[in-house]
Amino acid sequence: MLHIMHADFAAPVERLIDELKHLPGIGQKTAQRLAFFLLRAAPEDAPALADAIRDAKEKIRECSVCHNITDNDPCHYCTGATRTRATICVVEEAHNIMAIEKTRTYSGMYHVLGGSLSPLQGRGPEQLKIKTLIERLKGGGVEEIIIATNPTAEGEATAVYMSKLLKPLGVRVTRIGVGIPVGGPRVCRRGHHAKSDGRPPRPVIHSSP
Amino acid sequence: MLHIMHADFAAPVERLIDELKHLPGIGQKTAQRLAFFLLRAAPEDAPALADAIRDAKEKIRECSVCHNITDNDPCHYCTGATRTRATICVVEEAHNIMAIEKTRTYSGMYHVLGGSLSPLQGRGPEQLKIKTLIERLKGGGVEEIIIATNPTAEGEATAVYMSKLLKPLGVRVTRIGVGIPVGGPRVCRRGHHAKSDGRPPRPVIHSSP
Repeated sequence: MLHIMHADFAAPVERLIDELKHLPGIGQKTAQRLAFFLLRAAPEDAPALADAIRDAKEKIRECSVCHNITDNDPCHYCTGATRTRATICVVEEAHNIMAIEKTRTYSGMYHVLGGSLSPLQGRGPEQLKIKTLIERLKGGGVEEIIIATNPTAEGEATAVYMSKLLKPLGVRVTRIGVGIPVGGPRVCRRGHHAKSDGRPPRPVIHSSP
Repeated sequence: MLHIMHADFAAPVERLIDELKHLPGIGQKTAQRLAFFLLRAAPEDAPALADAIRDAKEKIRECSVCHNITDNDPCHYCTGATRTRATICVVEEAHNIMAIEKTRTYSGMYHVLGGSLSPLQGRGPEQLKIKTLIERLKGGGVEEIIIATNPTAEGEATAVYMSKLLKPLGVRVTRIGVGIPVGGPRVCRRGHHAKSDGRPPRPVIHSSP
């Protein structure tokens, strides 16, 4: 028989545990462990985390061009002197940009959709940042859109939708190659590769978050 | 081949990730996930966590009697009107008190040692809050000390040390029973049970953190 009992910590500790439990993947036990760690930490260490949270929330905004998170608008990808403006890589979330940057094989622009199409969760095309992408295309100079949404059902559906929407606008639309990550287990996967367009194949990039 | 590459987040995001990585059990990936969650969270949610950390650090102090963490000194166990002052349960850390309180079978006093004897980590008897426990005994009225240190090698060594130290002071010293937790897997364990002192056995309490 399991009872969920009221933990009898002092009120500020209870509040801290409750707030930590709001974080993804943090349950009661982990929250307790983190709370006690923070309470035991040096007097300057715990406020450092509090300050970092506050500071990030205050300074970080969305890039008005690509919707990446940034402290300077436009972000440093949009303003990068060495980056080509001819390609835009479309990703679901800002942190997906990191996975692509880590491959060091891409130096174009980005566009963050802010999610994927998911009718079950009520996310239709209006909820994604698609309008601003089309406006960027209208600005001219863009030759290729690389759709790098996640290799999930929603991500694939979003890729198909975007592809149909963008191709009539006279831009080349490609889907990122998705393969087995280097060093990952060699389990059998159904391969998703970018359709051949007569050019040598793109390096395989695994865009897990 | 694995490269650890510099993540190219905006400085406040980097700082937040770095601070989150200081937490126990939080690595780079989890820290990133938590940071992006906090950035995406509603404007009032992330500061709530920051405030809770700050608040807890400011208000929480050590109880001057039992060394439990508390926002009121002495803590509510030491001042509890319905709690018996005749027994003191000795635990390693403040959060161990919760495990014992959850059993709802104990309503005496507590004493938090602040760790266990660990010569390898340089924790000798001087590093533990033993002097104040002896002072409490000198104050009179204490009939029994229950040693509820963890069932680890260090915890057991601490229990033996405490027992030898306290018995000459004319107080009954018992070790808490450690058994298989209710609902836990029935794997074979070497049983550690409190030595019989002629009274009915104590309820088995599993004092994992």
